[in-house]
Amino acid sequence: MTPGLPHQGGDGGTAWRRIADALAASIEQGEYEPGDTLPASVALAERYGVHRHTVRQAFRHLAERGLVTVSRGRGTQVTAPRFPYKLGRRVSMRTNFGAAGIAVSGAVLASEVVVGAAEHCAVLGVPEGTPLWAIETLSRAGGTPVGTGIHYLSVERFPRFDEILTEAGSSITAAFKACGIPDYVRRSTRLAARLASEREAALLKIEPGAAVLTSDALDALPDLTPIHIVNSVFAGERMEMVVEPFGD
Amino acid sequence: MTPGLPHQGGDGGTAWRRIADALAASIEQGEYEPGDTLPASVALAERYGVHRHTVRQAFRHLAERGLVTVSRGRGTQVTAPRFPYKLGRRVSMRTNFGAAGIAVSGAVLASEVVVGAAEHCAVLGVPEGTPLWAIETLSRAGGTPVGTGIHYLSVERFPRFDEILTEAGSSITAAFKACGIPDYVRRSTRLAARLASEREAALLKIEPGAAVLTSDALDALPDLTPIHIVNSVFAGERMEMVVEPFGD
Repeated sequence: MTPGLPHQGGDGGTAWRRIADALAASIEQGEYEPGDTLPASVALAERYGVHRHTVRQAFRHLAERGLVTVSRGRGTQVTAPRFPYKLGRRVSMRTNFGAAGIAVSGAVLASEVVVGAAEHCAVLGVPEGTPLWAIETLSRAGGTPVGTGIHYLSVERFPRFDEILTEAGSSITAAFKACGIPDYVRRSTRLAARLASEREAALLKIEPGAAVLTSDALDALPDLTPIHIVNSVFAGERMEMVVEPFGD
Repeated sequence: MTPGLPHQGGDGGTAWRRIADALAASIEQGEYEPGDTLPASVALAERYGVHRHTVRQAFRHLAERGLVTVSRGRGTQVTAPRFPYKLGRRVSMRTNFGAAGIAVSGAVLASEVVVGAAEHCAVLGVPEGTPLWAIETLSRAGGTPVGTGIHYLSVERFPRFDEILTEAGSSITAAFKACGIPDYVRRSTRLAARLASEREAALLKIEPGAAVLTSDALDALPDLTPIHIVNSVFAGERMEMVVEPFGD
């Protein structure tokens, strides 16, 4: 048996899958670290006694699992694991990452008062055209930009929210506390994937045309009265959302 | 006031945002339908009395909201709305879409028995190296491919699952019923975004390099015993996942 390959039982599995699993195990055990380049397909083909096309298929599989990034010229690089972000009844980013020892910081990039769009006003339960804050923020985890979002809230209900959020380092939890709201909950999140716009790529420091995870979310008071919409864009390569319906 | 623009109160908002909101309202009211091309920026600039750069900023904003796709040569096209898929304690795709009158169909593309990878066996609570089914399926909603996935289950616990799933038209719910499991629940889902591989793009009939929403999920018996892993890839432009922690 070739060293490094897992035991192949009678049920076998295909050669590319076994090579992919062996490489995945090496990555998970830290033999290859994020940013490392895997050996070239020719070298691995020789090591495992297979055709280099088989190794390339293993690379493609690892790329589909998000473990590596295959690029022309730079070879096959190990991807850093994504920050897991739990989407439960409470969603504070600082609580999420703080538990993992990752410091979250944020900034308010821009704020303005807008005429509330019909869809936003309907969701917030205010008359169409109500003045709303539109506040753009950027969040970092461990110093790396992970997401940017636009927050919509009633100006009448939350006067000075732009200043309060700025003073709170863009922490929604802290800003709500400063407004006399000690607790809030996530009512709904709609998640989708698309390509980053140029501006989003610049803010998140990802390649233009990289994938982003979009999140259109609604927060509410504990009695489920909606108070806050946040439409966010997360760097697809850096974040993953974790949903555990029985975990709350 | 220019026709088609929402009322601009004293709090105003910027010109591009008002134009974007007016176009979004026209799209939501069906004045422009999916696949329609919006008027050129020059024409809209004249209609609204603004510079065409302002209209282009509105287009970019609509693209960021996923309402339109801006492409060189083809102009600014209205995107079809995404199919919403509720990620609750139960996740049957047929139940999800059936409620909206959308027919779901599916097919088994390939199946094999593999030596269970360490990560899969740990999650399923079986010894490392246990033979697992690796069954690839494709799902369509309303005839359009929306997702493709690989399902992992114990071969010992679910003998003949490949045939059963094929007979069930790739419905996991129906296949489990045929195995004597009338009910199952979603324990966890990890969602992320990345670019489609060539194979995924071909299966989902999306552009190579389009964004996909990835879902690594674990299903369990109602007592939460894990039985089924499914790692799926959904067309980013066609699907959105909806999480409502208080909705179950």
